[in-house]
Order: sequence, then structure tokens, then C-alpha cells
Amino acid sequence: MATTIFTKIIAGEIPCFRVYEDDNVFAFLDINPVSRGHTLVIPREPADTLDQLSEESAAALGRVLPRLSRAILHATGATAFNLLQNNGAIAHQAVMHVHFHIIPKYADGSGLGLQWPAQSLSADEGIQLVTAIIAQMG
Amino acid sequence: MATTIFTKIIAGEIPCFRVYEDDNVFAFLDINPVSRGHTLVIPREPADTLDQLSEESAAALGRVLPRLSRAILHATGATAFNLLQNNGAIAHQAVMHVHFHIIPKYADGSGLGLQWPAQSLSADEGIQLVTAIIAQMG
Repeated sequence: MATTIFTKIIAGEIPCFRVYEDDNVFAFLDINPVSRGHTLVIPREPADTLDQLSEESAAALGRVLPRLSRAILHATGATAFNLLQNNGAIAHQAVMHVHFHIIPKYADGSGLGLQWPAQSLSADEGIQLVTAIIAQMG
Repeated sequence: MATTIFTKIIAGEIPCFRVYEDDNVFAFLDINPVSRGHTLVIPREPADTLDQLSEESAAALGRVLPRLSRAILHATGATAFNLLQNNGAIAHQAVMHVHFHIIPKYADGSGLGLQWPAQSLSADEGIQLVTAIIAQMG
């Protein structure tokens, strides 16, 4: 597994504004925030992408998200936020270590911008997809 | 807690293309997909937003995300994806029941579009924010 800036932050080799840590999870401020309070939540486990992460680390990450989100909302005064986790360079992942972004969204529009090119799912495509996904779930 | 289209889907009152379910989690295809394979993962617990969700439900959701993501990638042939969870109308939340979007991103560009107006975090602002968030974590 490659060393990344995030493994160095966890190891204390690079300083950060640490918000939270436990046996599985580490959270700190993004130094290039999309909005005020933008926080990164990462597993200590150095998986590149979420599909490669252990269930134990993923559960530990999930567990702390409500509490961290509440703390960020209360500290910033924001009432809305986006949770975003990108996997793969074409999906906007820049550091190859799983990370969840908690990005407050403010009434002035600051925060994450989304482009949402929604289509319509046909019954045929729905059946084909759901069958294929369930087969892969084993 | 208000009834939403998602509580009706969980109850079987509205049909869906169900991908997965367990005691805490329910997953199904989005009928207005942003890209092929776009899947919604929701807790049975009817919390409006992630900051209001129980730690138990949040951990259960986290736990299944790697396995579900792998299945969707394998079924669709995608190699990248975005995980997105919106909280609040101004953050693009349309249904007031916590939901995680798993949105495959394809080489042709189809998938979620992101606008990323990154700034720079000053040391003063970092110290102020991290102090305020840690105080809220209790």
C-alpha cells in the first residue's frame, strides 16, 4: 500500500488541525476547504477506495459521522451539509486513501456545487441492473 | 417523523428495484439515475438527516458500503464512483429521509458533476474552527 499525505498525517509526520481520532478513524480540517468547516474523515486503514476498505473500518467510519456532523454544524452555525466520498481519479479523488468530506453548505451558496444530470430508469434496465448487482452481492 | 416515499418503499407500499436489505439497511436503484447503476442506500430508521441518525444505524450503513460498492462496480463495469449524502434542501436533499447515493462514474464523463471552489485555510481560522468543533464533540 502506497504512502500518501494522509498516512503521514495519521503518523504525525505532517501537521494537521485534528478534530477527532479513535482506534479506526482520524478526522481533520481540509486545508483547502470548499467551505468553512470542511472536514476530512479517514480510516487509519490505508485502503485506496471505499470498495477496498474492510467492513470493520467502514462501520467505524459510519458510526462517528452523525456525531462529527453535529459538532461541525454547531461549531459553524451551518444547518446543511454534503457528505462526499470520491473513488478513482475520474471521480475527483486526489489522494489515494479513503476519505469522507463533510462540507457545510451555507445560505449564501458557499459549499459544494453539484451537477445532477438525472435520467429515467426503464423497467428493462432496472431488471437487468438489479439482477446483476444482486448476483454480485453473493 | 414524517412519512416519505422512502418509508413507503421500505414498507413495500411503493415498488422498487431492491438491491439489498438487512435489519438496519435497505438499498435500491434510483429511478432517476445520474448514471447507470445509481443506487440509494438508506437506513430503516426514519431520520431526516445524517446528524440526526443513531450511531447504530450509521455504523450498519457504513459496514455495507464496501460490499455494495464492489457489487455495483462489478455489475456495471465502472471502475470509479462517488458516494454522496445530502443534508438539507439547500444541500440538494429532496427526500427527508437519510440516503446515500452510490453513483458510478464512467470514462465518458457520465456520472456526478462536482464544482469544487477550494480556498486556503489560514492558521488563525484553522485554530478557531478546530477548537470550536472539538468543544462540540464533548
